Amino acid sequence: MTGQAMTDKDRVLSANLEFYRAFTLRDVAAMEALWARALPVSCIHPGWMALRDRDSVMRSWHDILANPEAPHIMCHDEEAMVYGDVAVVTCEEALDDNTLVATNIFAREDDAWRLVHHQAGPLLMRAGHAGRGANRLN
Amino acid sequence: MTGQAMTDKDRVLSANLEFYRAFTLRDVAAMEALWARALPVSCIHPGWMALRDRDSVMRSWHDILANPEAPHIMCHDEEAMVYGDVAVVTCEEALDDNTLVATNIFAREDDAWRLVHHQAGPLLMRAGHAGRGANRLN
Repeated sequence: MTGQAMTDKDRVLSANLEFYRAFTLRDVAAMEALWARALPVSCIHPGWMALRDRDSVMRSWHDILANPEAPHIMCHDEEAMVYGDVAVVTCEEALDDNTLVATNIFAREDDAWRLVHHQAGPLLMRAGHAGRGANRLN
Repeated sequence: MTGQAMTDKDRVLSANLEFYRAFTLRDVAAMEALWARALPVSCIHPGWMALRDRDSVMRSWHDILANPEAPHIMCHDEEAMVYGDVAVVTCEEALDDNTLVATNIFAREDDAWRLVHHQAGPLLMRAGHAGRGANRLN
């Protein structure tokens, strides 16, 4: 961005891309570095109950990144909304054979934007308005 | 809570319960009041792409609450993590015939905790560690 300062939104989207880079390259050290140390963290993997402490969250990522059958993943259609020292990214995750939709929450810690929460779930429909009574997940 | 001041965590969990009360009673006015006015909002209903502006989000809730087939919903196992003026609640949503797991994000606006984001997706497994390569959503 020639001549322009990076905004918080830019920094958050950059951290979000780094999350997917670490995921798809199975880079455990990068994944570890991305998650907040002092702030509380939580994570909801697709289909799973919420994990609510750093040990459980990091253990889950170690397991996922060590799994040779873990899918490749590409992030697209990402958008960041910044609320002071917290930012919420929504995006889609293209896997080998399906697409998920995700919420990634970042918070400022030690002058860096670090992950404090991730939830991903299946994307089944793209158009029209959401209607909980009208789709198979309800 | 006799003799104890309400903490931000209490207030956030109270707002979270109010969200599920509005949902299950199909109280459109209460749902409208719960969502932030000035802050940006987004919402990921189960299976759907992200909705990223207040009009789309509120229209989706109007549609859901007007739907006679919308399920009853009960929130349980909720936990709040507070990050200054933003709070993240994770909880489970018991519907008539299945269970979802949700992220609800609240932000302080006009001295109230208001919703800025909601994502819910299916809960398929309860125990063990998450393993993206090992479940059917990947």
